[in-house]
Amino acid sequence: MNFASDNTAPASPEILAALQAANAGIVKSYGADPITARLRARMNDVFEREVTAYPVATGTAANALALATLVRPYGAVICHEEAHIATDECGAPEFYMGGAKLVTLPGADGKILPAQIDATMARAIDGGVHFVLPEAVSITQATEWGTVYSPAEIAALSEACRRHGLRLHMDGARFANALDFLGCTPAALSWQAGVDVLSFGATKNGALAAEAVVFFDPALAEGFERRRKRAGQLWSKLRYLSAQLDAYLDHDLWRENAAHANRMAARLAKGLAAIRDVEIVQTVQANEVFAAMPDALIEGLLAEGAYFYRWISLEGDPRPVVRLVAAFTTTSEEVDELIAVTKRLAGN
Amino acid sequence: MNFASDNTAPASPEILAALQAANAGIVKSYGADPITARLRARMNDVFEREVTAYPVATGTAANALALATLVRPYGAVICHEEAHIATDECGAPEFYMGGAKLVTLPGADGKILPAQIDATMARAIDGGVHFVLPEAVSITQATEWGTVYSPAEIAALSEACRRHGLRLHMDGARFANALDFLGCTPAALSWQAGVDVLSFGATKNGALAAEAVVFFDPALAEGFERRRKRAGQLWSKLRYLSAQLDAYLDHDLWRENAAHANRMAARLAKGLAAIRDVEIVQTVQANEVFAAMPDALIEGLLAEGAYFYRWISLEGDPRPVVRLVAAFTTTSEEVDELIAVTKRLAGN
Amino acid sequence: MNFASDNTAPASPEILAALQAANAGIVKSYGADPITARLRARMNDVFEREVTAYPVATGTAANALALATLVRPYGAVICHEEAHIATDECGAPEFYMGGAKLVTLPGADGKILPAQIDATMARAIDGGVHFVLPEAVSITQATEWGTVYSPAEIAALSEACRRHGLRLHMDGARFANALDFLGCTPAALSWQAGVDVLSFGATKNGALAAEAVVFFDPALAEGFERRRKRAGQLWSKLRYLSAQLDAYLDHDLWRENAAHANRMAARLAKGLAAIRDVEIVQTVQANEVFAAMPDALIEGLLAEGAYFYRWISLEGDPRPVVRLVAAFTTTSEEVDELIAVTKRLAGN
Amino acid sequence: MNFASDNTAPASPEILAALQAANAGIVKSYGADPITARLRARMNDVFEREVTAYPVATGTAANALALATLVRPYGAVICHEEAHIATDECGAPEFYMGGAKLVTLPGADGKILPAQIDATMARAIDGGVHFVLPEAVSITQATEWGTVYSPAEIAALSEACRRHGLRLHMDGARFANALDFLGCTPAALSWQAGVDVLSFGATKNGALAAEAVVFFDPALAEGFERRRKRAGQLWSKLRYLSAQLDAYLDHDLWRENAAHANRMAARLAKGLAAIRDVEIVQTVQANEVFAAMPDALIEGLLAEGAYFYRWISLEGDPRPVVRLVAAFTTTSEEVDELIAVTKRLAGN
Repeated sequence: MNFASDNTAPASPEILAALQAANAGIVKSYGADPITARLRARMNDVFEREVTAYPVATGTAANALALATLVRPYGAVICHEEAHIATDECGAPEFYMGGAKLVTLPGADGKILPAQIDATMARAIDGGVHFVLPEAVSITQATEWGTVYSPAEIAALSEACRRHGLRLHMDGARFANALDFLGCTPAALSWQAGVDVLSFGATKNGALAAEAVVFFDPALAEGFERRRKRAGQLWSKLRYLSAQLDAYLDHDLWRENAAHANRMAARLAKGLAAIRDVEIVQTVQANEVFAAMPDALIEGLLAEGAYFYRWISLEGDPRPVVRLVAAFTTTSEEVDELIAVTKRLAGN
Repeated sequence: MNFASDNTAPASPEILAALQAANAGIVKSYGADPITARLRARMNDVFEREVTAYPVATGTAANALALATLVRPYGAVICHEEAHIATDECGAPEFYMGGAKLVTLPGADGKILPAQIDATMARAIDGGVHFVLPEAVSITQATEWGTVYSPAEIAALSEACRRHGLRLHMDGARFANALDFLGCTPAALSWQAGVDVLSFGATKNGALAAEAVVFFDPALAEGFERRRKRAGQLWSKLRYLSAQLDAYLDHDLWRENAAHANRMAARLAKGLAAIRDVEIVQTVQANEVFAAMPDALIEGLLAEGAYFYRWISLEGDPRPVVRLVAAFTTTSEEVDELIAVTKRLAGN
Repeated sequence: MNFASDNTAPASPEILAALQAANAGIVKSYGADPITARLRARMNDVFEREVTAYPVATGTAANALALATLVRPYGAVICHEEAHIATDECGAPEFYMGGAKLVTLPGADGKILPAQIDATMARAIDGGVHFVLPEAVSITQATEWGTVYSPAEIAALSEACRRHGLRLHMDGARFANALDFLGCTPAALSWQAGVDVLSFGATKNGALAAEAVVFFDPALAEGFERRRKRAGQLWSKLRYLSAQLDAYLDHDLWRENAAHANRMAARLAKGLAAIRDVEIVQTVQANEVFAAMPDALIEGLLAEGAYFYRWISLEGDPRPVVRLVAAFTTTSEEVDELIAVTKRLAGN
Repeated sequence: MNFASDNTAPASPEILAALQAANAGIVKSYGADPITARLRARMNDVFEREVTAYPVATGTAANALALATLVRPYGAVICHEEAHIATDECGAPEFYMGGAKLVTLPGADGKILPAQIDATMARAIDGGVHFVLPEAVSITQATEWGTVYSPAEIAALSEACRRHGLRLHMDGARFANALDFLGCTPAALSWQAGVDVLSFGATKNGALAAEAVVFFDPALAEGFERRRKRAGQLWSKLRYLSAQLDAYLDHDLWRENAAHANRMAARLAKGLAAIRDVEIVQTVQANEVFAAMPDALIEGLLAEGAYFYRWISLEGDPRPVVRLVAAFTTTSEEVDELIAVTKRLAGN
């Protein structure tokens, strides 16, 4: 009964097979290899346009490099106060940006709204050189609360960005899960909605360690390659990073993995929602379930071997909350077992 | 005839097999997995003492993280002017150290000498707060010129470090090759000779992308884990990094790979040395051969499909120089073919 | 009717005279001059103990240097969300600290509370390496809302700091004003209450451009001198910075300047409080008055030539707020004029 | 007999008088004051064109801010290996630039040559993303060896910069001394010769603490104001910085101060050159004299109360060297006394 995180899962067999296939012969290092070239073409196909995409090994690196490319050291990034970049990357964005700040905003469902961008910019402009200069907005898709921004919501945020000369970055650590929920194309959920740069996640959804930073306007990528190198993020044997992403995108593996994880989360949410004393406190739109339940129940579940994390409580609601994450490897048996154990412990 | 770099080679089959074996089941992320635990024990065995070792994906990251842990932003690192950290990492050490400088020194055979450390410290102290404060010395083993520091040479550098309160870092991207040349133990070539922190390379010698930062005094590692995280260098599925290193160290794979590469370099050097117009300009002690030869010969070799890089000329010797690197996958047939083609082109 | 800021005022004549007196003869540069030595002794007297004090030219530099000395790049500073360091220094602390973050907290009266420190540390520890590591707390005295922390309040915050291994920094841009309000000694308001490092302000209260960073434990000052130099904050002709501070502390000039400004603020607050439609929304404890009044009244005052800034509204109170700052040069005539004009415009 | 540095001198009385004159009334802070406006106009007059000039308090700040504005964190600055920015600012440029490197070059007379820029760029381009990207060249005027670049020499360096897309920065800590030697206009020695940004020094030549960063193309100044603020280099009472520079430029004070210092250096050099055992080892073109003399003579002079610094020896010449600096306050009596004492001690 492991629902701790999608990163406790192993990698897809197809991706391991791709590494094995890549492990032959001499190729040029640092990205001048045929697999990286193939990945480049595949990325263009997936996004239905020419993109500039760079593979890196971690989501934190993808986010930090993307933001450092968009924002100058005296600048700032506007984001949700619970954004992964704000709370879970130990200051990586600030490090990579050379000290630029995150300006964090509250918001229901883990989302920020266009009006908040306007208000933040008004205060920033009023502050003159004393205030940092926001140069980008970063949103997480799916959000840290397992919800999904629709293309229309993203477009509205993007319009606010245009009004103020800001770039829009999307932390897509769970981009595939959001895509599955919305049933739209990768293009519709990114550049067509006004996203400038996407951290395209693969690690949580089947890779060993692989993400891509995708620039939809090549001009925005200026300097990225040197930033990646000086960050120690450029693999000499880059084929092994590209091969993971290539296999991830091949035959819709990524879509299928995400669809499965989403189905498992939905099944889990449905089962838990029927239990007295348990309440699903966020609409389940991707592969994460947030459930309020009594402390005794949480302790009981942990004692039975369930593996998951306590989360922060909702604003104005003191009940304990747990986060339950389904991965592409989660089985319906595991889900049903957790539901059954919860029901039993709750005395239903 | 590929002699461009050991990083154009694939990975050892044993290391791929280890990834495959690691690809099963749920494990805790971020290093709390059994493979990382096993690696930790194996590292202690290899170095014959308790060490604090952290896996990362690239040599640049290993060096930059190690130095950032030893040196404060107002500090400096003393190193050879051709050190990889000084010329090939696009400023990664400076980035990770928060702007601390490298103070570079000339030196024959890619090596620096204790007296240079003394002289540098004398100038630094004379400069007071106007000069940066050296806090570490970094040496490369094997050096950028394919030579190897003996344990006695390292001990003498370490003594100079102790005199001035400096830490000694070793960039061991080709540590295994140096070890093979010297025939000594890993302990003798590191902490027993006075090395404080070692960037322990594996990528060039058989891994896909894996290095370890090894602290011989755990107190020196303070803050490393947060630095690694904020640098985007902490893999969530760390098992896949640890598994590479674990397999690398298992059954002496690393020693055998390095021994083979060294043998191939020696064979190549011997063959080339016999050719008129070609001179081996650095003693070959690891897996790299530096040869001076006429421009026409270089162009001829490249035209025949040989793959290698031109290098900088020796101080005071204007002849063109090429670098030829043997990898663990280099075959004696390849070596002999390069020798034969060179001989033919040189008209011998 | 200038109530915009205490930094629109000129300097005290005594401080100009000290510059004139310092302007003779050759002295050693970079602080090895007799005036700097005299200042050092005077600082010890003022604080009734041996302190390590460094003059710098701006408050932003004082704060940023102090924090950079206490906090490592992967660390963090806990402070109020309206703290000057968080909102008015364009990211200077983050720049100087090498990217370390500010963790900001809400709080009435511009103050933070010990329990908030405990809660922040609980979350930080829970977050492990994913969260930044708070290493210091910074409070502003007087606060950004013109209120004053009592020695007891500071001591309670300091105790919370000790519980969690944090250092306590005080941004004392208006330290003299707070001191005057409390009527206590500089020692009682700083190290005796548990402050580790103080940014001791003088610019707003009579200097041209002079502040001091005061370490109460010399061991905490390690590296400060190099940090100051590499920040371009070390004056070659340091005597001119030291002379300002020396004159500032001489003959209680600083205490008298602050007492005057505080009296003027109190007089202003009393006068405005009696006007219908105007409400003083923060207890006036130093030299700043925060008054809620209708927009039309604000516009009217500005049209009459009054010079002051609009401020952010109080949480949950939509009324417009203005900030009115009295300086050591503010006259009772100016104060009475502003009161009279306000009364007239308000139709009282 | 003080020849230690021009920064051991006091300030010009005219500049103190200007501070006194500025010390009246309320003015807007942070540069929106009439004195700063007047300085702006005067700067345009001095340079015979519209310039964007910002006052700061130290030369290190001026250099570091200028370079940070021109160079990105993954970039580099080409400069002489003895440049002040490389050896005497404790890493300030690296700090302000966010870790960008200095690529240092040797060169006679403290000067670098266009061909060295070409060679450096060739290596940088050859190194690809592994090498830092030079984006600026910085030269010192007068140089660290007291020599002066002619407008033609600067123009040739500027042409090399244009060839490679580099910006040309001039550290003009002793710009006035160079100007006096050449007898040309400030325009001829800066933008007309191809300088993009000038650190315009005043502290060493008569100010208390005042320099200006002068951009000849306003577009290059983008972001400077926020960089200055976040570096803690923006004075709230900026009038006191502007007043110094304004008085410095008024009535040719700066030209006269520099002319005097240069005359004193020439007189000193002439006198010393006639002494057996003393050799002037650099052409004296500004206010610095570099003299080789026996150790015993140096010790004798110091014992007699002369105040100056030992310097590094010339390449390939082991004789001890001293640096003797004349200031605008140096008298001919002091000069003659030093000559006389030297003569006596040398037994002439």
